[in-house]
Order: sequence, then structure tokens, then C-alpha cells
Amino acid sequence: MAPKNAFYAQSGGVTAVINASACGVIETARQYPDKIGTLYAGLNGIVGALNEELIDTSTEPDKTISQLRHTPSGAFGSCRLKLSDPDTDRKDFDRLLAVFKAHDIGYFFYNGGGDSADTCFKVARMSELMGYPVQAVHVPKTIDNDLPITDNCPGFGSVAKYVAISTLEASLDVRAMSRTSTRIFVFEVMGRHAGWIAAAGGLAADYGLPVVILFPEIPFDEKAFLDRVDANVKQFGFCSIVVSEGCRYPDGTFISDQGAKDAFGHAHLGGAAPIIANMIRSRLGHPFHWAVANYLQRAARHIASAVDVKQAYELGCAAVNLALAGRNSVMPAIDRTADAPYAYRIGTAELKDVANVEKVMPLHFISEDGYGITESCRRYLLPLIQGEDYPPYTSGMPTYVTLKNTLVKQKLPPFAR
Amino acid sequence: MAPKNAFYAQSGGVTAVINASACGVIETARQYPDKIGTLYAGLNGIVGALNEELIDTSTEPDKTISQLRHTPSGAFGSCRLKLSDPDTDRKDFDRLLAVFKAHDIGYFFYNGGGDSADTCFKVARMSELMGYPVQAVHVPKTIDNDLPITDNCPGFGSVAKYVAISTLEASLDVRAMSRTSTRIFVFEVMGRHAGWIAAAGGLAADYGLPVVILFPEIPFDEKAFLDRVDANVKQFGFCSIVVSEGCRYPDGTFISDQGAKDAFGHAHLGGAAPIIANMIRSRLGHPFHWAVANYLQRAARHIASAVDVKQAYELGCAAVNLALAGRNSVMPAIDRTADAPYAYRIGTAELKDVANVEKVMPLHFISEDGYGITESCRRYLLPLIQGEDYPPYTSGMPTYVTLKNTLVKQKLPPFAR
Repeated sequence: MAPKNAFYAQSGGVTAVINASACGVIETARQYPDKIGTLYAGLNGIVGALNEELIDTSTEPDKTISQLRHTPSGAFGSCRLKLSDPDTDRKDFDRLLAVFKAHDIGYFFYNGGGDSADTCFKVARMSELMGYPVQAVHVPKTIDNDLPITDNCPGFGSVAKYVAISTLEASLDVRAMSRTSTRIFVFEVMGRHAGWIAAAGGLAADYGLPVVILFPEIPFDEKAFLDRVDANVKQFGFCSIVVSEGCRYPDGTFISDQGAKDAFGHAHLGGAAPIIANMIRSRLGHPFHWAVANYLQRAARHIASAVDVKQAYELGCAAVNLALAGRNSVMPAIDRTADAPYAYRIGTAELKDVANVEKVMPLHFISEDGYGITESCRRYLLPLIQGEDYPPYTSGMPTYVTLKNTLVKQKLPPFAR
Repeated sequence: MAPKNAFYAQSGGVTAVINASACGVIETARQYPDKIGTLYAGLNGIVGALNEELIDTSTEPDKTISQLRHTPSGAFGSCRLKLSDPDTDRKDFDRLLAVFKAHDIGYFFYNGGGDSADTCFKVARMSELMGYPVQAVHVPKTIDNDLPITDNCPGFGSVAKYVAISTLEASLDVRAMSRTSTRIFVFEVMGRHAGWIAAAGGLAADYGLPVVILFPEIPFDEKAFLDRVDANVKQFGFCSIVVSEGCRYPDGTFISDQGAKDAFGHAHLGGAAPIIANMIRSRLGHPFHWAVANYLQRAARHIASAVDVKQAYELGCAAVNLALAGRNSVMPAIDRTADAPYAYRIGTAELKDVANVEKVMPLHFISEDGYGITESCRRYLLPLIQGEDYPPYTSGMPTYVTLKNTLVKQKLPPFAR
């Protein structure tokens, strides 16, 4: 009997290292041609499965696949799409099943965060309900670091490194300017509901720089915040502020809410930095500069964490090995065994315990005043930013690969969702 | 006769490589103890001279000074301060002269951009008018790349590299997201009056990515711009926009003007990106993300251009050599002799030809439609971003040096400006 084919796709916000996971999945699958046939990648995540837009990854030579390891963004395209519930609405699943049957797909690897784990969990549930065997394995990825069970999520370490270094560099800049010019630097970072990314800015405080962090976990208290900033300006001459896009007033409204919502009903945020900066100028009078990193932070493969790249790759490999071991509805996870020297092993999590569960940052990671990180947070973060895994460069620019993404011939009529 | 002492200071916006120039100045001065006595650094630029806040750089060991080469920001502090005109108001110059006499300073090295060249030129003029011999040599530095005569300015190449790489990385990100989510990425970069920095975003277009640049040189035409963006979204599914903070409407008003002004009367800008992004959403309906790099771009020593670091260092060395050769009121300058392979030599410019002269970007560097760069611009830019001069890392973070900045004993009464 010919081996079953496999489907792999990337979902949700892409990262600096999600392609390293893709590299791990594809390279490992290629080692077992007797067990895994063709590995198809979905063009734009699960959308590619629904639309029967399947990329034949076997047309890419090994060398090109290996270059995915140092290429940011999602090489096959990603999506934000919430599938229907297979228990109440089978439309999406009838289609997925038809596509999987048409292309003899028996392995499903989905690479994403919490919303994507939900998709992967539903595919496993569909397989069970509809009696078509598909082994669904989730490959964790999210800069938000909010998946449960796994100690950390691929993508986060590199964002943390970017945010820590950027906070350090910009703080040194404002320090130099503070005598006659800028005294305040406000740096907005991602993290809709959890302060993991903002916390990384606290690593710059190790350099004796005054860094105030505004976490989503701590309701924004304008007076206390301004007092703290002013005290730093009086003591140091300047102050850096790292503000999470998820920073909220006590009534729960975001400091900056652009009003738009994404496919999952989440508010589409941005612009907390200018609001905080203008607040400081109008109340304290200090001249400011502000920056919003947005996509730059999660795309910054040029300064990726070597630990993060390594783990992203290893989890891709582990996902295939779990499938080959007969596992279903699971996710490989990082199991930290020591902080210093850092040690971890690859464990396994059941998707029922992962899907739609959001891991918040422990409150003991936030200092008592609410504006900094604790020693236990530092011990958690530091291992994740270790090492520099620089991409190769050609003529001054990183050599990121773009795949051919050749689609296989469609066998089914078009699908209208 | 004991050799004269020297004064060095950093002025204007700091950069990723201004400390490499400081390193060149200090290391070269140390080679000639028979000709240059103590090298004092001004704490916070010329303010340090006026306030007699002089840092004794001789207290720093050679190893620490060598670390300046890979440390961003201004190690001695910078300032934005416009001196009075020595021909009409001698108050500042009487004080400077008193401080220079008190500390036997005969060499003046000022490291900055156009406004700082004006300061250096005035010091040379003061020396002439007041009969006290000071050799004033300017060390060029400005991310704005707008100094005349020199082919390029230290600091610019590293910002260009950062902007080119960031544009590439974020464009790959939005490309992956564009099927169901973000289609527009707007990236705001510095460059108050000239589009040099924004032009660097055009290097990402070499990767087949749709990048639209909004230059300060081209009056903003909303309809033509939106048509262009929409055409890109139709063709590619997404579009990246690099907008200069100096982008202006045809009547000359900046797209975003926060209303504040700096010491030189320049508008303090920021926030063009959200304005452009919201314009696209309201007119075309495309979902967007936006980023404002601000200080991050000029502080990003972690991805500095090796050519830029080398030139910054060499110009620091050259400034001291010019002074030792008896030159006054001059600036070492980059004289490009070939594009590919890139070659240059260090020439000399007279400060009278540099102070208060702003080099705009040649219009033939901008493509005919006004939204991209030409091949001649590409030939100009590419050599400046060559090579990666990574700083050393300790425990995942760059090892940037902070100096002791020990002040020498003051000999004069305080100065009130």
C-alpha cells in the first residue's frame, strides 16, 4: 500500500522562525518516503485545503528547503480563518474531507497559535466523527507566547530578543539626547492580552537604564504612571517606556483601539505609543520620541534568537515523529528542565488541553509596582534569547528564499464557503 | 612647550556609528602624545564646553575606547544647541574662549551634521576674530545624509541597511498574511527634508515586492497614491508603503506635524504612518498594519553596515590627522571613486562650504512616477549597506560600553547662558 500523503500549513500571524518549523517538518518527512508520500503545503493555511490549493513541496530541492530555516514570514502564506464547529456545522469539514480523500492525505500538520490549535483539534475531531483517518498534529508557533503546557512558543524568543535589544539601543539614544532634547522614548510592542513581549523590554533595565513597562495585566493608572516617569526623569534625566498594545484602562478599554476587529473578533490595535507620549508631554512637559515596532518585531529574522530557531526546527521534526509514532490530536511542546544552564526536552501536549486555552503571564513575573519584571521573569526570559542565528547575506541584504509554490492539479469543483 | 589639549564632542541626533568616529579620534590622538595633550570630551556636546563639563578621556583604557566602535548612541552625550553668531553676539564665544584657555585647548573636533558644522565653523571664526588659535575640524555624522561635498555621511549607511532589511522583512510578512488578513503595511522612516532614508526602502523592491515610497521631495498626491496602492493590491495581493516623516502636501504642510519645534526651529514630526494607513482603509478598505521606526532605525547598531562603521572610524582618524597637518575650519569627506566594485578615498571639505548647506537627493534618483528609486539611486545606495559589523554579545545581548565620563575639576565660575 502506498504511504499516505501529508498536509502542512501555516496559520495566524507569521514569525521570524515559523519557516524553521516548516523546514523541520519537510526535512523529517523526506527521511521517511516509505511512510509519508507527498507533503503538500496549503497555500495560505487551511484556506489552501478548503480551496484545494495544494503546493507540491517535493518540487523544491533539499537546498531550498534548508534555506527556510533562515527565512522569516510564512513561505506558503498564512491565514486567519475560524472553521465551523464540526459537531454542529459540517460544511467546512465535508469539504476538507473531500480534499483529503482526493489527495490521499492521512497526516495533517498545522503550524500556529491558539486559534490554529483549535483548527487542528477540529480536524482531529472531524476525523473521528466522520470515520476518515487523519493524524492531526499541531506545530506550536506564536510570538504571543500564550499557548498552555509548552514552556514557551517558537517565535516568541526572537521577538523578545528584538524587543530587548531595541529597548536597549533606543534607551542609549535618548540618554545621549536628554540634556537639551528628547527625554522620553515610548516603544509600543505587540501582545494583545499578555505581557510576555513587553516583559522582554525589562531586560534592558539590566544595563542601569530606567525602563517603565506598561503590561496588559496591570490596569493603567495615569497618575501613578506619570509620577514614576517623572521620578525617572528627575533621577536619570530621561525615561524609556515599553507599552504593550494591550495596555488597558481599569474599565477594560484599550488605551488605543482603532475600532476594527479581525476574523476572530479580536480588536485590531495600534497607536498606544503616541497616546502615552502625548500624555507625558501634556502633563509633564517632557519632549518625546515614540516608535511602534508592529510587524518589524515578528519579522526580524536578522536578529533571531538561536535558541528560538533551534526549537522551532526541532518542534517541526518532532511533529512528524509524533505522527509516525501513531499519535493524533497532539502537539510537541517545550519542557524546560533547568534555567541555568538552560536545558529542555521535547514533550507532548494533548490538543484538547491546548485549543482555546490562553496562558497568561504569571503575576509574580511583574514587579510589585507593576512597571518592571522580577528576577524569576528574568530567569525565564534569558534562556530564550540566547545566541544569534544570523541569516547569510548577499550584497548587503539577507538571502531570504521565496519558494516556487507550484500548485497541484485540482480534482474537485470549486468550493464556496 | 607642552602640546595643546584637544576637545571632542558629539552633536545633534546620535547614530549607530558616531561612537566609531569617537573611537577613531581618540585612538589617533593617543598615537601623538607629543602633539596632542589630553583629549577632553564635552559632556553633551558644546554644552559641555560652555558649562566647563569636560570629560577626561585619558581615564578610559584603550580596550574600553576600542569598544566604542561597536556601541551605538553618543557615549559622551549629545545636544541640540545653536550658538550665537560670533560676528554680532560674542557671549557664547567669550565663554568658550575662557574655557579653552583655562584648559589649554588648541584642537576642536565637533562630530555632527549640518547644524553642528555651523557650530564648528563658528568656533573657527571665533578663533580668527578673537586671536586665540584653535584648529576646528568637523567630523561628519548624520543619518539624514544631507551634508554637501561628502559622498555620504556616517550614520546613513547603517540606517539605510536597517530600513532596507526591515522593509524586506515586513513586506514578506504582509505577503504571507494578505490572503485573509493584512494587505497594507505602512512603514514610517526618518528624513525631515530629504528622502535618502526612505529611498533605502526601495532596495526591498529588488526582491519582487511591491514597495511604494513617499518622498519629501514629491508633493503628496492622494488620488495618484491611492491608485498606485490599489493597483499593487490587485496585482500582488498586498502593498508595502515606506513613508518619510517629511512627506508633504502640495501646500508644504507635513502629512503629520505634531506642532512642536526643536531648538533650531524645525518641526518635530511623527505619525505619518497611521495617517496614510487610515487613509488607505477609509478609501480602499484594505486592512493594514503600520510601524514607526523612529529612534530604532538610527540606534540599530545590531545591524550596522560594515562600510558605514569603517568610514565613521576612518573619518574620526582623518579629522585628527587634518588637525595635525595644520588644517583649520575643514571636514574630512568621503570621495567616491567607483560604484562597483566600490572605492572611495578620504578628501577634505572647507567648512564654509558645508555649514548650513543641505544636500537634497538628486531628482534623478526618484523614478518617474515618484514612488520608487532609479537604477542610479540603487548604484549609489548599495555600496553603503555592504557588510555586517555585528557587535559582540554576552548572554544574548550586545555588549555595548558605557564610559565612566569622569569630569575634570572646573576652573571657572558657572556660566548662565
